[in-house]
Amino acid sequence: MTDAIRVFITGGTFDKEYDEIHGRLYFKDTHLHEMLRLGRCRLDLHVRTLMMIDSLEMTDADRALIVENCRKADEPRIVITHGTDTIVETARALAAAALAKTIVLTGAMIPYAFGSSDGLFNLGSALSFAQALPAGVYVAMNGRCFTWDRVKKNRQTGAFEDA
Amino acid sequence: MTDAIRVFITGGTFDKEYDEIHGRLYFKDTHLHEMLRLGRCRLDLHVRTLMMIDSLEMTDADRALIVENCRKADEPRIVITHGTDTIVETARALAAAALAKTIVLTGAMIPYAFGSSDGLFNLGSALSFAQALPAGVYVAMNGRCFTWDRVKKNRQTGAFEDA
Amino acid sequence: MTDAIRVFITGGTFDKEYDEIHGRLYFKDTHLHEMLRLGRCRLDLHVRTLMMIDSLEMTDADRALIVENCRKADEPRIVITHGTDTIVETARALAAAALAKTIVLTGAMIPYAFGSSDGLFNLGSALSFAQALPAGVYVAMNGRCFTWDRVKKNRQTGAFEDA
Amino acid sequence: MTDAIRVFITGGTFDKEYDEIHGRLYFKDTHLHEMLRLGRCRLDLHVRTLMMIDSLEMTDADRALIVENCRKADEPRIVITHGTDTIVETARALAAAALAKTIVLTGAMIPYAFGSSDGLFNLGSALSFAQALPAGVYVAMNGRCFTWDRVKKNRQTGAFEDA
Repeated sequence: MTDAIRVFITGGTFDKEYDEIHGRLYFKDTHLHEMLRLGRCRLDLHVRTLMMIDSLEMTDADRALIVENCRKADEPRIVITHGTDTIVETARALAAAALAKTIVLTGAMIPYAFGSSDGLFNLGSALSFAQALPAGVYVAMNGRCFTWDRVKKNRQTGAFEDA
Repeated sequence: MTDAIRVFITGGTFDKEYDEIHGRLYFKDTHLHEMLRLGRCRLDLHVRTLMMIDSLEMTDADRALIVENCRKADEPRIVITHGTDTIVETARALAAAALAKTIVLTGAMIPYAFGSSDGLFNLGSALSFAQALPAGVYVAMNGRCFTWDRVKKNRQTGAFEDA
Repeated sequence: MTDAIRVFITGGTFDKEYDEIHGRLYFKDTHLHEMLRLGRCRLDLHVRTLMMIDSLEMTDADRALIVENCRKADEPRIVITHGTDTIVETARALAAAALAKTIVLTGAMIPYAFGSSDGLFNLGSALSFAQALPAGVYVAMNGRCFTWDRVKKNRQTGAFEDA
Repeated sequence: MTDAIRVFITGGTFDKEYDEIHGRLYFKDTHLHEMLRLGRCRLDLHVRTLMMIDSLEMTDADRALIVENCRKADEPRIVITHGTDTIVETARALAAAALAKTIVLTGAMIPYAFGSSDGLFNLGSALSFAQALPAGVYVAMNGRCFTWDRVKKNRQTGAFEDA
């Protein structure tokens, strides 16, 4: 379980920051490397930022880009950080591509920079499922792992549930 | 992957706190419930504190108690939080008992209460491996999962390595 | 220096929170009590929330309300938490009222809930200046204390400067 | 109120860290600069580390060194970070030296590195009292400021009280 894992960053709440000059949320750099340091992660990870956007603004072209990068990746195991609002939609697009890889999407409800984030828990979870599960497309949230076709986000509670 | 998981707490760095009156480290209550809330964990977990000690002080009798509790547990999947100094020794005692269960031990290098802890990452990781792996005894640290007989803690770096 | 101090809360970045369901910033409850607990503050404080708004949305009527509350307060020393964008304007309105009280306004560049906030530093500073300075209207930010008529916010850096 | 302030660091709980290899508390570098950055402090501070020790281990020679450094300092306003256990004793030694300066000692009950620290609040408070008070020796804790001869630490609660 120690082969290299590919990690694609797409933005989402994970990486939102607070712009103190303008008093609003924005994206600057990913916090993934800082999170991996905090977790004392010793996995061989190949990290690449594909985009840095709110998943509500993700277009079909963006999703095609994610699918294409997963297809071309040499690594058979991939983790994708993603906004939670449309994470299921991207999982569906990846499943349609029928790649023979283990792909785990994850996100966060609270930005990592805000201290009280679920991001570190979710990242530990996603990297672990990516190592242990067979080929397929999954969403890892709330300590659980769902296959792409059996998950939905509950808009009232923010939790992911069986669909 | 949504059946109940048993969680046994034994103490370790995970749960160390700072005693502000006496200026030293000590154990009070576990932080596990707070960590699960932060991770927005929606797993069905049955949590029980077996002891709250530094793993350097763990005796054979303590280990026998942990093994016995794992044996009697109804749940086929178990996570144990443990001090990292003797986590491998306890894993060996559990393996000797040859239980037909998936048992994942995990710990932390920095107390959860200290902000910069790896605990949340490790907890997310351990709970995920416990759901996905077949029966066996494992140690989950640094984003990796080792079988009980192929792991050692590097005392210089604090990291877990193949043995 | 141990008489009661009046604290008026008006909102501002100090008290902004992250709404994890809608992914935006909002106001819920003040964090002042939590901050005072963290600071182990033992002052006799009479805290009252007057409003909970972004200071860019503060109207003349809101300012009149703040002035009126300061006028009616029994305590001769008052601290006001306020958004930084119009804190100088409110200080001017208070000075115009010519109350024979020590009034210190303070704010934060980063919400307290986000971990990396300057709020706790500013609160400790404002409460201290309020105890030690003679009657007048002041703005306490960046470890400094400015009289109301000699301060401006630098919109580029976010810092407060002599005006 | 914008002249340079001298800051002397002596260690204490303020600067304790957790040694993750040996599982114990220790001193490495001061966190003062990081705390000043977090507080967006814009004061002209001249910071110098005199020692980095637990105040229970502070000797008469250490105190003589602190007094001597305060005497030689060009700045008329001085803040000293200090362990809380013997902070009153050092204040007494400074008062005996009868320097014509404003000297404010402060400390923390929880190490800054542990997240839930009162250190940032106390630092904001001490720097503010140092600017606003006349010459004398003071202890700033719990949001209050005590003259050196009218303060004691309550060993049961950890709070500072009138003596």
